[in-house]
Amino acid sequence: MPERDLQYLAELAAQLRVDSVRAAAAAGSGHPTSSMSAADLMAVLFACHLRYDFTDPGNPANDHLIFSKGHASPLLYSLYKAAGIVDDEELLSFRKRGSRLEGHPTPRLPWVDVATGSLGQGLPIGVGVAMAGRLERLPYRVWVLCGDSELAEGSIWEAAEHAGDEGLANLTAIVDVNRLGQRGPTRHGWDIGAYARRFGAFGWHTIEIDGHDPGQIDFALSDACNTRRRPTVILAKTRKGEGVVEVENREGAHGKALKDPGKAVEELGGPRDVRVEVRAPEKAPTPHRFESGQLELPAYKVGDKVATRAAYGEALKALGAARGDVVALDGEVADSTKTETFGAAFPERFFEMYIAEQQMVAAAVGLQVRGWKPYAATFAAFFTRAHDFIRMAAVSRASIRLVGSHAGVAIGEDGPSQMGLEDLAMLRALYGSTVLYPCDANQTAALVAEMADVEGVSYLRTTRGSTPVIYEPGERFPVGGSRVLRHSPDDRATIVAAGVTVHEALAAADELAASGVPVGVIDLYSVKPVDAAALAEAATTTGTLITVEDHRLEGGLGDAVMDAVCELGPRVTKLGVTGLPGSATPEEQLSDARIDRHAIVAAVKRLL
Amino acid sequence: MPERDLQYLAELAAQLRVDSVRAAAAAGSGHPTSSMSAADLMAVLFACHLRYDFTDPGNPANDHLIFSKGHASPLLYSLYKAAGIVDDEELLSFRKRGSRLEGHPTPRLPWVDVATGSLGQGLPIGVGVAMAGRLERLPYRVWVLCGDSELAEGSIWEAAEHAGDEGLANLTAIVDVNRLGQRGPTRHGWDIGAYARRFGAFGWHTIEIDGHDPGQIDFALSDACNTRRRPTVILAKTRKGEGVVEVENREGAHGKALKDPGKAVEELGGPRDVRVEVRAPEKAPTPHRFESGQLELPAYKVGDKVATRAAYGEALKALGAARGDVVALDGEVADSTKTETFGAAFPERFFEMYIAEQQMVAAAVGLQVRGWKPYAATFAAFFTRAHDFIRMAAVSRASIRLVGSHAGVAIGEDGPSQMGLEDLAMLRALYGSTVLYPCDANQTAALVAEMADVEGVSYLRTTRGSTPVIYEPGERFPVGGSRVLRHSPDDRATIVAAGVTVHEALAAADELAASGVPVGVIDLYSVKPVDAAALAEAATTTGTLITVEDHRLEGGLGDAVMDAVCELGPRVTKLGVTGLPGSATPEEQLSDARIDRHAIVAAVKRLL
Repeated sequence: MPERDLQYLAELAAQLRVDSVRAAAAAGSGHPTSSMSAADLMAVLFACHLRYDFTDPGNPANDHLIFSKGHASPLLYSLYKAAGIVDDEELLSFRKRGSRLEGHPTPRLPWVDVATGSLGQGLPIGVGVAMAGRLERLPYRVWVLCGDSELAEGSIWEAAEHAGDEGLANLTAIVDVNRLGQRGPTRHGWDIGAYARRFGAFGWHTIEIDGHDPGQIDFALSDACNTRRRPTVILAKTRKGEGVVEVENREGAHGKALKDPGKAVEELGGPRDVRVEVRAPEKAPTPHRFESGQLELPAYKVGDKVATRAAYGEALKALGAARGDVVALDGEVADSTKTETFGAAFPERFFEMYIAEQQMVAAAVGLQVRGWKPYAATFAAFFTRAHDFIRMAAVSRASIRLVGSHAGVAIGEDGPSQMGLEDLAMLRALYGSTVLYPCDANQTAALVAEMADVEGVSYLRTTRGSTPVIYEPGERFPVGGSRVLRHSPDDRATIVAAGVTVHEALAAADELAASGVPVGVIDLYSVKPVDAAALAEAATTTGTLITVEDHRLEGGLGDAVMDAVCELGPRVTKLGVTGLPGSATPEEQLSDARIDRHAIVAAVKRLL
Repeated sequence: MPERDLQYLAELAAQLRVDSVRAAAAAGSGHPTSSMSAADLMAVLFACHLRYDFTDPGNPANDHLIFSKGHASPLLYSLYKAAGIVDDEELLSFRKRGSRLEGHPTPRLPWVDVATGSLGQGLPIGVGVAMAGRLERLPYRVWVLCGDSELAEGSIWEAAEHAGDEGLANLTAIVDVNRLGQRGPTRHGWDIGAYARRFGAFGWHTIEIDGHDPGQIDFALSDACNTRRRPTVILAKTRKGEGVVEVENREGAHGKALKDPGKAVEELGGPRDVRVEVRAPEKAPTPHRFESGQLELPAYKVGDKVATRAAYGEALKALGAARGDVVALDGEVADSTKTETFGAAFPERFFEMYIAEQQMVAAAVGLQVRGWKPYAATFAAFFTRAHDFIRMAAVSRASIRLVGSHAGVAIGEDGPSQMGLEDLAMLRALYGSTVLYPCDANQTAALVAEMADVEGVSYLRTTRGSTPVIYEPGERFPVGGSRVLRHSPDDRATIVAAGVTVHEALAAADELAASGVPVGVIDLYSVKPVDAAALAEAATTTGTLITVEDHRLEGGLGDAVMDAVCELGPRVTKLGVTGLPGSATPEEQLSDARIDRHAIVAAVKRLL
């Protein structure tokens, strides 16, 4: 690289440091030192290797840059300023109310794919974006800036395994090994060889460099671009707070504005007005797309017994035939979740993620960055493994579809480790989420199709065992709706159920009716949003609601019902799982948990 | 090893297979093939290397054996039968209602330390048990039987990193590489070298063997015992369903009873009555214990402003001086959570777990196996990363204490990625959990001490910013209690709050009182269990409750209140976070989320 270019890169990096210090100073908080260590890495990336059309963030040929170390947001925003898409005034609005320049990057900025800030997530999501590139046969590259501290997260090694084994050569991780975490030194300090051995063992091409030497950085980035069949990790030894004596390579300087920003800016050579011209990508080939056709959902005969998980598999296959943008992921349990039905029909659009639920959800988030409609499935219980990824997907406003099978005690003998009993609580509490829980196969099929266009995180809960088909094929089940299954003007109470307990509620209602106690039954298949109008109607007419769910009492269907009617003041009795189940048959489990037909009858009689 | 011994070991292994087949056949379900692959490994371990006194499971010198692949429970129970502690009748009660022999092992059996069945957890928990052994200077060994499929879980590599870097030579992982997962082949099949490279890179001693050769197994187990300064992983190439043609090394034979168990038993040479004498350990030295003394909790002056996270750190230090059994863990944020206060005072009892929340919670579970009282802290938001581990801790009836700092929008500028807004929902929905949320420093100190003897999973939620001290030092705050902070016979409504919103509620009550609207205020510091009596009193006297929480509306304080009073039919209005926050000051955040004093006043006025 000519001396002139090296000088330019040094100037650009100095400006990035200056602007990082200034932004944090204006905010009175933030992470300038974590930005300063990575300034040279990003200066060279922007000036020499990134291919991005900032005037057209949706250009399919654009590279993708993810700041996995999201707290280095001042650096990212300083890069945007150098690229001329954020002005100095906006830069200094960093972390202020209403500013797009939040403490950690979010997709409120059109050039940010996903929110980061929970460490160890950017690389797994980058794997998903790289998978999309391969699926679409696009030449873009995915660049992920990682911190060294976050390499302690297991999710990083799920990503390393998937990318290494799949040979995602379009993915490059750039690790800013600045030796210092938040609280003090990292486990391996500047031993970049320790990280190289780990990534190497997972099949990555590894490059060890001085992260403040533009020539070495340029060489490493070129090497990454030229590497075939393997992802590349660039392990860059850097100094946190580089360039400013007050903070350089010092403990206790994490996550705060500098004490003397004026002096720091001076030390760094003062403000500059260096611009970086990021090269737009070559015109890309048209992204590869899969065929679309007519939607012909499976149809089940009323009275037959079919597991909703089986209906999920068949409906997803039908949806896959109708929509080329639907893809499916599974956590090595596709024979249980029934994703295998889709996988057999559309192997190119099915991703086996093995038992790595964090990477599975992250891959779904990455795929939807490019507009794909991912459905990701595992046991309901095991989505708890990916809770933080689902939470961050909500912050990213990502549209992903999760399907949790083997819900509740109704799974039977396998016992509590396999029972999804907390999934409704987990999914309901997320920003903008949708939670669906069908009770029969036709309803499941309709909801699977419905989910395709739901924005945000949506969740479908399926049941292991077979349940009777009670709805005709082709009936509509809009998100936010419910179905009144039993109703008379004489109803003395209303039972609200979903999924497996709908059938228990119907049996209880029949038994109660036979003994002269008419009760209503509502199938609340949309647990979030709930059909507040239907619940209010029941609350004001019968005045007594009994909710019953195969889930813990906290945070599930019962709470959703109460939330909808609490200002109206009806009496609400909640039935749900309170104890710790062991092994037993499904029928014994429902009985022991006191959520079966007999328990419902007893609860109604007690109330009236 | 003499031929006679090899024959015995082969006979014992054959019996373990036979009994695994028989148990699953009796149950009509279960995982016999996953048991058969590991039978030789466990036969040699029990006969030659395990040191365990089955008559005294609490013997501190006992080795610990964790079936990380918990679905191989038929093998474990067959081993118990061979050891003479479970009889054949009980063996055949496998998976039946009321049996201790559940589908996946749980501590209902006195020889089982922790519940397993969610894969990738046994090894990280084993790391915790090994840490306890080192802390107590006990010579026991920790043996963990892993499956190959579960090595895809990131949590395995968090464990590999921690154990490798700490040099936990008392830990041995035995990986049953049978090539087949649930759905089909694993990523690496029989490439045990792939696993060896990975574990080797993380600093482990690796041994590759034929897992059906007793001589090789014996050698490997001896080698593990003789290895210093490094944990050992034995990578054993095995065949799933070994010994029975119907299932051996065949896909589609996972997790089900054999079709023809009679023929399989015959193929395996028929039932036997081989017994294994597991050697009891040598008498161990007295476990090392730390000094205990008087509890002198920090005292804060009413009216001062102190962050509850700071009070947590100081109270934990005081508790550490009083109780030698208290240990603390942190996820590389001890300067934020304030665990550093304890760490500085008791470095031997402080464990830096780096940014690996799953391993942190698993280590806490492992430490409590040996009776330690672990407190594990990180940001409230980041406990979502360990949700599945916390869920399984509840299934294990493990007593661990979690402390989540930086709760809610009140953290201010850092933005949504760092805000704990779903933690109450997550923690409340767990079996037998306790959820505490103090509003001032003295209350925090009291609750930190209270938690030490709480059984099960308990959780304390702390706040980043300073809040006024409103309680006198030394006041008692029992779990399940509440405090009435404002009350008059004329109250027209009752505001229920906890943590940061208590102060907003008090300000709102003052403003309302000044405008002639007296309202009560309850500090519901114990979110689970709740003080149902106090809430019922408020519900029946004022008839109108307003809950306000710095948490999402779903699954938190408001739902806890509704749950307690729903059968009484009061009107309840819930205030909580509904939108997606950005960056802003703490005051702006509370205002924008409509959970500050002004929002409370407006809500009361609207209701009345």
